[in-house]
Amino acid sequence: MNVVVDIYGGDYAPEEIIAGCIDAIRKNEGFDVVMVGKEDEIRTILKRYPIEEYLNRIQIVNASDVITNDDVPTVAIRNKKDSSLVVALDRAKSDDQCMGLVSAGSTGAVLTGAFLKIGRIKGIQRPALAPVLPTVNDKNVVLIDCGANVDCKANMLAQFALMGTAYAKSMLGVKSPRVGLLCNGTEDKKGNALCHETFALLKELPINFVGNMEAREILSGDYDVVVCDGFWGNVALKSIEGTVGTIMTMLKKEMMTSLRSKIAASMLKKNFKNLAKKIDYTKGGGAPFLGVEKVVIKSHGNSKACTICGSIMQVVNMYRSKLIENLKNELNAGVAAGSSQD
Amino acid sequence: MNVVVDIYGGDYAPEEIIAGCIDAIRKNEGFDVVMVGKEDEIRTILKRYPIEEYLNRIQIVNASDVITNDDVPTVAIRNKKDSSLVVALDRAKSDDQCMGLVSAGSTGAVLTGAFLKIGRIKGIQRPALAPVLPTVNDKNVVLIDCGANVDCKANMLAQFALMGTAYAKSMLGVKSPRVGLLCNGTEDKKGNALCHETFALLKELPINFVGNMEAREILSGDYDVVVCDGFWGNVALKSIEGTVGTIMTMLKKEMMTSLRSKIAASMLKKNFKNLAKKIDYTKGGGAPFLGVEKVVIKSHGNSKACTICGSIMQVVNMYRSKLIENLKNELNAGVAAGSSQD
Repeated sequence: MNVVVDIYGGDYAPEEIIAGCIDAIRKNEGFDVVMVGKEDEIRTILKRYPIEEYLNRIQIVNASDVITNDDVPTVAIRNKKDSSLVVALDRAKSDDQCMGLVSAGSTGAVLTGAFLKIGRIKGIQRPALAPVLPTVNDKNVVLIDCGANVDCKANMLAQFALMGTAYAKSMLGVKSPRVGLLCNGTEDKKGNALCHETFALLKELPINFVGNMEAREILSGDYDVVVCDGFWGNVALKSIEGTVGTIMTMLKKEMMTSLRSKIAASMLKKNFKNLAKKIDYTKGGGAPFLGVEKVVIKSHGNSKACTICGSIMQVVNMYRSKLIENLKNELNAGVAAGSSQD
Repeated sequence: MNVVVDIYGGDYAPEEIIAGCIDAIRKNEGFDVVMVGKEDEIRTILKRYPIEEYLNRIQIVNASDVITNDDVPTVAIRNKKDSSLVVALDRAKSDDQCMGLVSAGSTGAVLTGAFLKIGRIKGIQRPALAPVLPTVNDKNVVLIDCGANVDCKANMLAQFALMGTAYAKSMLGVKSPRVGLLCNGTEDKKGNALCHETFALLKELPINFVGNMEAREILSGDYDVVVCDGFWGNVALKSIEGTVGTIMTMLKKEMMTSLRSKIAASMLKKNFKNLAKKIDYTKGGGAPFLGVEKVVIKSHGNSKACTICGSIMQVVNMYRSKLIENLKNELNAGVAAGSSQD
């Protein structure tokens, strides 16, 4: 079995992506890595590593072109047929031995490409991006959708709820995931038109829907899955990211105000590091793109080796946990309960 | 001149609201406070304070009923005619000497009440809630709308941009406020249908519109005004609030992990307090409800005395800065440039 990696996606491609692949196969067993990108460059970089014993677990597939953030996703996927991303997607689609794909490239291109090239699970209207965030009580919450789809319809959100539930069951080990609908208040009647319509659908699904919830509660640990339109989810996710950054900067500044605070801060170096690690959800891997026929992990654009390694292991774990089968089962249960399809 | 205060709105009403009123008149000159609520109770509480010299600056208006968070706003405003909020709104509307109103009561009731009782500025379709948040570089940003309106239309957002601009000019002293449109990306073509339509309108307005922006940048200091639908704004604001709370809790937990960290943390007590104060935007006062004919400040439900005092002084300062006139001028300039009206 293998994991396909887009070596030329991401701010630190190709060096850090390759380093991440090597990390993953050095530390873990039972899979190969298929590196997709400029073969000559990849071979040159690989020579820097003393990895003879692992070379039989590395395959290289040549792709001479690169999709950038400046490319229009749909156009790039159609026209840049020899880009690392498109070649990687084609390989993931056609290879029975492929567990899934990792890319740190343009989010739009990865999602569009996965949608067009790998294809949706039967019955899924729109696949969704579903990052897992750490909660205040050291648990996790799945935020679905976080930006793959804007202007969603209620039945799309209902499918997000089913996929999020399957994900939390399979990957987070939650028996009966508590699903909240992101809203501007907790009362049943709160929300905009899409909330109202979605609320009614979620109540009918065979999931543990616990009602409307406010963005303030996303990280509270009271929810395992938060369902939202991709636009709101993007606003929530990036508000959280921005606030983390802002507070850490303010904290650093505050620590520099006196000799006393500087000394105390130096005593806390390790603790601040722990904290930063805990709240940076991008360090451990990427966000799964749920609803396509293979496991696809979108790693953050600024991924370094350890994140890529984490993303590769996410693919391996999701494959081994039979995530895609579980998603299909959850969807079928939803359909049986009356969830609408396309 | 006077400021009308709803003494029975908020989690800590009436004690902390009264304490806040007293704080405000003790520390500042040039205005009276009109306390609206259960007169007997207010008089009993006032007796606890040695404030004889200030009594001539306190008026009490009796109102025997209270609107709670469980009330449906529109119904409560119509039916609870003798509630502290409705009586306060009526007084603010009819009193020429009234600079504005403060309430820490149910957000829905305060906004609905201000809309129905005080009335909109001519030409304004929907007033908007516009809290001011601290940025990472110790400046401020106005987030408009933050929850007064869901399912907005593009021309409503255009008016938010004009009101936000007027506010940043008058109250934050920014000469040419940089206005961003909250979006899921920075490129011109990013966003949902409402973003696209709004983008086109904002480009035509006589404001300093700098384009689409991501939620990650709200606190960056790169924007003075962030324009959004009230639903997204609510998601952004509460995501920020929730993240602040989460990080502070995680930080505290981390500080308790060893003797070393406990000692260091005790040395940093003052610094942590400074930080908490800087990032808690609700401490200094409330959020203005822009677009109605008087200054209305919605103070946070959990407001204690110092926040109520801050909210009262916001009313005084906004009145003295001629905020309402400036809003009207900005709107007229927008209309002249082709902004749509109702």
